[in-house]
Amino acid sequence: MSAPLHEARPAGPGRALPSAGPERRMSPDTQQGMRRRNLSRVMHTVSAEGPLSRAAVASRIGLTRAAVSTLVDELVRSGLLEELGPERPGRVGRPGSALAVSGGGPAGIGAEVGVDHLAVCAVDLRGEVRTRAVRHVPNRGRSPGSVSEDLTALLLRVVGAVEDEGLWPAGLTVAVPGLVARDARTVVRAPNLGWHDTDLGALLPARFPLTVANEANCGALAELWLGEDTPRDFLHVSAEIGIGAAAVVEGRLLLGNRGFAGELGHVPVRPDGPECACGGRGCLEQYAGEEAVLRAAGLEPGEDRVGLLAGRAERGDRAVRRALHDAGTALGIALTGAVNLLDPGGVVLGGALSGLAPWLLPSLRSELARRTAGPACPVSVSALGSEGPLLGAAHSVVRGVLDDPASVAERA
Amino acid sequence: MSAPLHEARPAGPGRALPSAGPERRMSPDTQQGMRRRNLSRVMHTVSAEGPLSRAAVASRIGLTRAAVSTLVDELVRSGLLEELGPERPGRVGRPGSALAVSGGGPAGIGAEVGVDHLAVCAVDLRGEVRTRAVRHVPNRGRSPGSVSEDLTALLLRVVGAVEDEGLWPAGLTVAVPGLVARDARTVVRAPNLGWHDTDLGALLPARFPLTVANEANCGALAELWLGEDTPRDFLHVSAEIGIGAAAVVEGRLLLGNRGFAGELGHVPVRPDGPECACGGRGCLEQYAGEEAVLRAAGLEPGEDRVGLLAGRAERGDRAVRRALHDAGTALGIALTGAVNLLDPGGVVLGGALSGLAPWLLPSLRSELARRTAGPACPVSVSALGSEGPLLGAAHSVVRGVLDDPASVAERA
Repeated sequence: MSAPLHEARPAGPGRALPSAGPERRMSPDTQQGMRRRNLSRVMHTVSAEGPLSRAAVASRIGLTRAAVSTLVDELVRSGLLEELGPERPGRVGRPGSALAVSGGGPAGIGAEVGVDHLAVCAVDLRGEVRTRAVRHVPNRGRSPGSVSEDLTALLLRVVGAVEDEGLWPAGLTVAVPGLVARDARTVVRAPNLGWHDTDLGALLPARFPLTVANEANCGALAELWLGEDTPRDFLHVSAEIGIGAAAVVEGRLLLGNRGFAGELGHVPVRPDGPECACGGRGCLEQYAGEEAVLRAAGLEPGEDRVGLLAGRAERGDRAVRRALHDAGTALGIALTGAVNLLDPGGVVLGGALSGLAPWLLPSLRSELARRTAGPACPVSVSALGSEGPLLGAAHSVVRGVLDDPASVAERA
Repeated sequence: MSAPLHEARPAGPGRALPSAGPERRMSPDTQQGMRRRNLSRVMHTVSAEGPLSRAAVASRIGLTRAAVSTLVDELVRSGLLEELGPERPGRVGRPGSALAVSGGGPAGIGAEVGVDHLAVCAVDLRGEVRTRAVRHVPNRGRSPGSVSEDLTALLLRVVGAVEDEGLWPAGLTVAVPGLVARDARTVVRAPNLGWHDTDLGALLPARFPLTVANEANCGALAELWLGEDTPRDFLHVSAEIGIGAAAVVEGRLLLGNRGFAGELGHVPVRPDGPECACGGRGCLEQYAGEEAVLRAAGLEPGEDRVGLLAGRAERGDRAVRRALHDAGTALGIALTGAVNLLDPGGVVLGGALSGLAPWLLPSLRSELARRTAGPACPVSVSALGSEGPLLGAAHSVVRGVLDDPASVAERA
């Protein structure tokens, strides 16, 4: 019998993407490790429930007030917490002791490489978007170097803007529509960009700690952190041109051995169906991908594909409605398998799928319900829509700070 | 932004089933919690690498020798560790300091309710099976009360035998072929026994802490803990009459929201295929379940179904070989979906499937390879075969002791 005690696994995309809470094991069980974890507990508590007095923080995390005060002093010194000052009028609680997460200090920078656009935003520790820049540009088939140049220009504009407000970038997470290696730098395969084995780390500015992550993973994390009543176990399904999914299990992203988990688009729906670029046949993407739906509806793929489909469906176009109905059925079949395997607390449709939900959901839900025993898994639509991946990318940096404030304090 | 700090989730089947290592969060980050975790680290280290001197344990877990000595003394006092005594001839290392996991003390009791048999075994902290009892009995359609009576008789025989050897039962885990609620007592649905909403906790002796768990989950844990070179992310597929699967993710069982994850048998393989008892159509079980294979081969289901199929296939029976080939194809289609979703490091065939592997594997592997991009996910056959669930059940109790020795020491 062997108990694998010391995991020796490389850090990777989702390793770098923080978990939902401070549970991540950061260091061995020493006084020093305990201090780091307790710093994180204080940050998470104030972030979730602040403003709070030191005494309230102490009672919530089960440490003495003296211990909490030492931790708080350190966090205030590093600019991660703020004291709101004595005698705030109209506030309940002891004067002078209210703590809040700093609106200055570190900011999380998120970026997104889409098939038709680039976007960058900065989010402060309070979770507020401080600045945001988008550029519409067809990236399909463009070289990674040329895309990275444009992205860097946007990035520097956003970083300049937040620095003007007294914040400093704690890190950068870039969401890409493709598979990312566990090194969290290399885009192994992004068929809709035409990239493979692309080391983005070599192409982007080295000024900030960089994490490259799959866009579906970023979207799922945004849902977990920002969605209302999102369960701690759910499957997030999104689409741009491909169909991506990400499973969150007990508040953590399911990554898989290579970091490739969540490839719902290549789940076989009809095993003898049309050939797919992946080598398989009858994959979900052949029925529910944007291009398949456009083809089924007799339309040409253009730039605003979702807008085109939604507009026509809205106006009652029967071919479009039929195509979306069939896509919903295919999604329902693929999701039946996924729900049987993962038993999630819910399925959330995000990205482009959220804009098409009114026409996808009826057939999707009925397919799922008739194929699964017991109460059907609830399917909801993300309120974040296509903003999810970008917000998830920026927030993942912020969560990284909350999860290990000591690492940032050292750099502050 | 809300950070869910304090998880308030009921303990459940796999909550109760311990993780692969001592990572499980057991208590808040206090001195007391740190002590408990360090006790676990010492136990796991000696279990994996012992006999070891105190100094060797200290260097492996990164604590001082003095700190380790205090922990070791406590574990020796509670009978969980043994000092092998000074001057063991032929041994390298400082005399008097070699520590080993106790071969006395607590034992894990595992039980299995199969469709055609009942089994109970006891495993000591060293991982050795100390005693084992099996009774062949058709349990299909028998009342839970009557099955529990027979199981209790076997159980008391095994417990009596280990107590005669100076061990004491630390807990009982019962593996059942069905879905188990997160209370780890209630069998929600076991179609091949004919049970539903059965509280096994009320029917079995209250003498030991009880965990009821899905047999596929127990089989997967056995593979994780006892298999050679088992990756930390894998999918374990087993079969008795139904087809069960369990995913292990980063060394932890994937449970799902209700504890029902791993229902590979009801993944749609051909969405317009034959109706399934689950309400769906063309589920994997309709192609690769034992009864479906027997039917396809023109055979009657009897008692030793796997033996019948394997014997005939061995002798070159063309109908049986064809039926197994087709079952392998169906498994390959369902596994393509699962591999795309979970990106496991490997797939392990266990239970009844391991006995049929020679005839299932070729079509299964080729289906999986041609449907997935990149290198195909490796598929291997469990060396534990049908013993997996029983061993996994007993070992889960043992791992529970290694993961939190303090809880057992208090009861010793």
